[in-house]
Amino acid sequence: MKYSFKNDYSEGCHPKILEALLNTNLVQQNGYGLDDYCQSATEKILKLTNSPNSAVHFVSGGTQANLILISAFLRPHESAISAATGHILTNETGAIEATGHKVHSVETSDGKLKPKHIQGVIDLHQNKPHQLKQKLVYISNSTEIGTNYFKEELINLSKFCKENNLYLMMDGARMGHALMAENNDLTLADIAKYTDAFYLGGTKNGALLGEAIVINNPALQEEFGFHIKQKGGMLAKGRLLGIQFDVLMTDNLYFDLAKHANSEAMKIKKTFVDKGFKFLSDTFSNQIFPILNQNKINQLSENFDFYTWRKIDSENSAIRLITSWATPESVTNEFCDAIKNLKN
Amino acid sequence: MKYSFKNDYSEGCHPKILEALLNTNLVQQNGYGLDDYCQSATEKILKLTNSPNSAVHFVSGGTQANLILISAFLRPHESAISAATGHILTNETGAIEATGHKVHSVETSDGKLKPKHIQGVIDLHQNKPHQLKQKLVYISNSTEIGTNYFKEELINLSKFCKENNLYLMMDGARMGHALMAENNDLTLADIAKYTDAFYLGGTKNGALLGEAIVINNPALQEEFGFHIKQKGGMLAKGRLLGIQFDVLMTDNLYFDLAKHANSEAMKIKKTFVDKGFKFLSDTFSNQIFPILNQNKINQLSENFDFYTWRKIDSENSAIRLITSWATPESVTNEFCDAIKNLKN
Amino acid sequence: MKYSFKNDYSEGCHPKILEALLNTNLVQQNGYGLDDYCQSATEKILKLTNSPNSAVHFVSGGTQANLILISAFLRPHESAISAATGHILTNETGAIEATGHKVHSVETSDGKLKPKHIQGVIDLHQNKPHQLKQKLVYISNSTEIGTNYFKEELINLSKFCKENNLYLMMDGARMGHALMAENNDLTLADIAKYTDAFYLGGTKNGALLGEAIVINNPALQEEFGFHIKQKGGMLAKGRLLGIQFDVLMTDNLYFDLAKHANSEAMKIKKTFVDKGFKFLSDTFSNQIFPILNQNKINQLSENFDFYTWRKIDSENSAIRLITSWATPESVTNEFCDAIKNLKN
Amino acid sequence: MKYSFKNDYSEGCHPKILEALLNTNLVQQNGYGLDDYCQSATEKILKLTNSPNSAVHFVSGGTQANLILISAFLRPHESAISAATGHILTNETGAIEATGHKVHSVETSDGKLKPKHIQGVIDLHQNKPHQLKQKLVYISNSTEIGTNYFKEELINLSKFCKENNLYLMMDGARMGHALMAENNDLTLADIAKYTDAFYLGGTKNGALLGEAIVINNPALQEEFGFHIKQKGGMLAKGRLLGIQFDVLMTDNLYFDLAKHANSEAMKIKKTFVDKGFKFLSDTFSNQIFPILNQNKINQLSENFDFYTWRKIDSENSAIRLITSWATPESVTNEFCDAIKNLKN
Repeated sequence: MKYSFKNDYSEGCHPKILEALLNTNLVQQNGYGLDDYCQSATEKILKLTNSPNSAVHFVSGGTQANLILISAFLRPHESAISAATGHILTNETGAIEATGHKVHSVETSDGKLKPKHIQGVIDLHQNKPHQLKQKLVYISNSTEIGTNYFKEELINLSKFCKENNLYLMMDGARMGHALMAENNDLTLADIAKYTDAFYLGGTKNGALLGEAIVINNPALQEEFGFHIKQKGGMLAKGRLLGIQFDVLMTDNLYFDLAKHANSEAMKIKKTFVDKGFKFLSDTFSNQIFPILNQNKINQLSENFDFYTWRKIDSENSAIRLITSWATPESVTNEFCDAIKNLKN
Repeated sequence: MKYSFKNDYSEGCHPKILEALLNTNLVQQNGYGLDDYCQSATEKILKLTNSPNSAVHFVSGGTQANLILISAFLRPHESAISAATGHILTNETGAIEATGHKVHSVETSDGKLKPKHIQGVIDLHQNKPHQLKQKLVYISNSTEIGTNYFKEELINLSKFCKENNLYLMMDGARMGHALMAENNDLTLADIAKYTDAFYLGGTKNGALLGEAIVINNPALQEEFGFHIKQKGGMLAKGRLLGIQFDVLMTDNLYFDLAKHANSEAMKIKKTFVDKGFKFLSDTFSNQIFPILNQNKINQLSENFDFYTWRKIDSENSAIRLITSWATPESVTNEFCDAIKNLKN
Repeated sequence: MKYSFKNDYSEGCHPKILEALLNTNLVQQNGYGLDDYCQSATEKILKLTNSPNSAVHFVSGGTQANLILISAFLRPHESAISAATGHILTNETGAIEATGHKVHSVETSDGKLKPKHIQGVIDLHQNKPHQLKQKLVYISNSTEIGTNYFKEELINLSKFCKENNLYLMMDGARMGHALMAENNDLTLADIAKYTDAFYLGGTKNGALLGEAIVINNPALQEEFGFHIKQKGGMLAKGRLLGIQFDVLMTDNLYFDLAKHANSEAMKIKKTFVDKGFKFLSDTFSNQIFPILNQNKINQLSENFDFYTWRKIDSENSAIRLITSWATPESVTNEFCDAIKNLKN
Repeated sequence: MKYSFKNDYSEGCHPKILEALLNTNLVQQNGYGLDDYCQSATEKILKLTNSPNSAVHFVSGGTQANLILISAFLRPHESAISAATGHILTNETGAIEATGHKVHSVETSDGKLKPKHIQGVIDLHQNKPHQLKQKLVYISNSTEIGTNYFKEELINLSKFCKENNLYLMMDGARMGHALMAENNDLTLADIAKYTDAFYLGGTKNGALLGEAIVINNPALQEEFGFHIKQKGGMLAKGRLLGIQFDVLMTDNLYFDLAKHANSEAMKIKKTFVDKGFKFLSDTFSNQIFPILNQNKINQLSENFDFYTWRKIDSENSAIRLITSWATPESVTNEFCDAIKNLKN
């Protein structure tokens, strides 16, 4: 069977998580996130974010996190703004609209929103009350095309949002990979400081499932549990999420796993670069989008699985390669060899 | 620490599930329920239900299953009917209403809906189009107060629903316990035959999380995946649900676990009966509701945890005791001894 | 053709309204409620309510007013409480649930909510966050069964709501009839003082259509126009509503019309009382519910139209008779004669 | 006071409507659209559409019509497609999203959707079930920028929609103006034949309020009244809408009024053309968008009111001029004189 670079959720979970599940299995605990492990994981997360007054909640997945956060934060006449590449716009089957809220789409060159993009949407919605009131800015870090935000960019966004009475929310389904990118200059503490809410993705970084929501704005923390429950996101055995994040937040494991994923991606990137290939976007996390002609795509497909992402011209397409905490170095090496051996 | 009879989700999962997670952990699989384990679990379920044309989907929990099913099945002007004790009415934070649909509440003596209850609701809604159109009947088996449906009751309900153009949906969060109750005369095949949809609860019967939805009515199967995704219920690592149900559906494990839970409850019930106690409802599954005075409740509380469920009169209350797949026989025996030793 | 006592919206509108429409017809005005007539009507209403800081908005009908107010006021996890007879529970096709909110139903003897009813609902919803948070109390004055609130009752409700962090909202589809009932001791100023929001019904008191919403709680006034527009309630020619309320609020017309309706109903009531008939509820506004046997219902039906409202026993039913601003005294007299001439 | 060309709803209604309201005022009628006038208007409309099996419903306004139609037609995972200029995208405060459905926006040159636009949206949503299913195409005739559809265009759209299992719905807030445009080649019968549903706008063509919904697809007609009621769109005195459309559909009045509006716009257009001005879009209905420099805009603003619609460059902007059934020829002449007298 071919090795798949299609995504970062093809395997189960890091062995330390299974070990912890085994060790705690028969300990009785309270349900619905009121267990000791959720408590412990929360404390570890809040230490990393350096925001002791933030509120932490664990849910199953990214779409669930996005729809619960946005529907809890917005009133009926308020809308969200996202880059056109944003996950809530492209791959969540209208989950946000299903809760009653429009998401405005903005084209960007690199998947990252800037104040000018947001201002553009606001400018087009001045005919009140016949047009929606924009209230929330949704960004992803790393983005859906593998790029990551820099500290100055985040500070600028945060300032703009505060000035314009907008909430700033960060989708961190791949937060580990963003923070461990070699060009990254952000910390979790920065992110807690400059956003109203964000989440730390577990599913794509070694957990069986789970995202850790962190709400920094006190006004948005109130009664949040009701929203999780109402939207079907509250697990009876919340311990399953608590245990996993407790393990991931211990001894830097979350970051080490992301670092490994990035490192494998960068080896592959370098190999493409050395051979003179171009990329759809310049990325430093665990997603790369090299551009190849169909003949070369076919050669690589013989032994490896990946998505053809976007047609560039009649001959060439960008492919998407995703590495993960589980990608073996040996496989990376085989893949790099395959690149080196590509024929025209 | 006191042993808790508060619910059936206080522990992790059956050891065979952990073993299977361990054994499959690094096998790469497709995401979103398209993995081999979900496929295998589906086949095993459809064999048990004897309904090869039913559609199976796995989701995380009961509230999620309820809200996805009901919102997928109903048009905006259609409503659901439930016993007043129904989980969707009492303990899901308005999850169904949040998708736009009213749930009509009917008082029952035993938590079980009968045609006359449904007819009563319909009779009160004849002023069309100024009143809602009832379209779905929601029942739970076992019910939220521990009772279970008999075959004749289900057949009557099914017939009534067909005659009145109503869908019949069964919440099976505790389906295993219902089917293994000593007074039960239903099979999974019966349930598949007489309902439009139901689900098999994993969370309360040995799984870490997960409910297996079975849609029998072909008209309701179409495009169901969209609804799971839109409501945030589609796990990237769907394998986690597939593996668990594959294990539970192997070698009768699902039913053996429920049988154990019931058996422990019945030992406790018998002990109360022998001492002359009365009950809030007469149950044969893993929930019992004996009525005690406060003094006796205090005595039992010294070494065991449980909920005081409902005040009966100034002196007496019903308590709720729930056993599970994980309840050790030794603890049951200790608890029975405590009952026998109760002082006035 | 038989004269109909079925409802108070069988005719067009008071002639003074048509006259005003004619006189203003070709004057150009701003759209969407920003016209001079809406402004003038607002000023007149605020004078009557003695609440200069209240906000006034005009919408087309009662269901529209109810769904806009409740969905604008509540967050997703919050619910409303209503008497079981409440219009939002019985005759609005689930309009409130369609905006995502549950309405709790409470049985009452006279259609009027008391603090004990509300406390009962709250007591049953203490398992947070697994149960909804009650946030709004919906009452109707006059009620759907013709009764009306007294000042002490309203003060008690208001006090209870404030203590329990609940909004108090009054459906005033028949507010005129309530305030002109002979047993009434409330003023519009009282209602503005003791409720967070209410509306003055025009449709059932001489207008072609229209309800005047008055929001007294400043926190609930903000950005309300967005909600009217989003729910399809903002008329391009808002002048149509402004003109009508401007006329109705001039020279006491609104109250005179209601007084006439009540007066005709009371004549009919007295005739029934004199003949020894009993009533479903004791009312002093424009709705009466006398109880008659089928034979007598048939006799009255020969020349008059009305609804048989509720079966009382095998022989007798309550009928509903509604008078209006348009009921001619001569018809009332004919109907009273018919009552006097009833044979067994 | 300056004469306003800002919109076509600045005045009341055509005098014949007031006359009919007066003549019928005290006739008792059934409520909720079950009156004789709605019946008569329906018959007249169905004769014009030559579609005896279509269903007709009357509602208050365009936003209301749009949100009721779209939410009634779509299931939760289905979305609508509209030109970027579409009213549902630009000026309805997220009314469609508030019912749970996304509207995809497509840029067009002339406000008119073509099959290629729709195909483009479909092509981007092939990752099922992670992306929405497109199900309804929304077009406006005349469009929000004054253009109108030709018969061949409508036939092509209809064919494409049928092939792709899409509903085709036409917003006819300005249907009269479209059909009376000098370049129009469509009839109401064509529109009934090639769309699943559309509506005839009354508000912008001489009525006080009201849009006549016509549903041609039998599968979409079922139980539609429930949706009108649930969304707050069912007037107790439905007669108000029936009377108006009955008058408008008598003796060609609806079309004569639109023709007058168009004729006045075309006089103004011709005057601008003769003076060498350019336009934002080439229109033949009652909206024109000439491009002027600020100096000239100021000159025209001295005696007339209108909107500056869009900035073209640093010196020039397009203005929007709307004529109506009520625009006096004398005012048109004065405005044309003002154009002729514009100084640089």
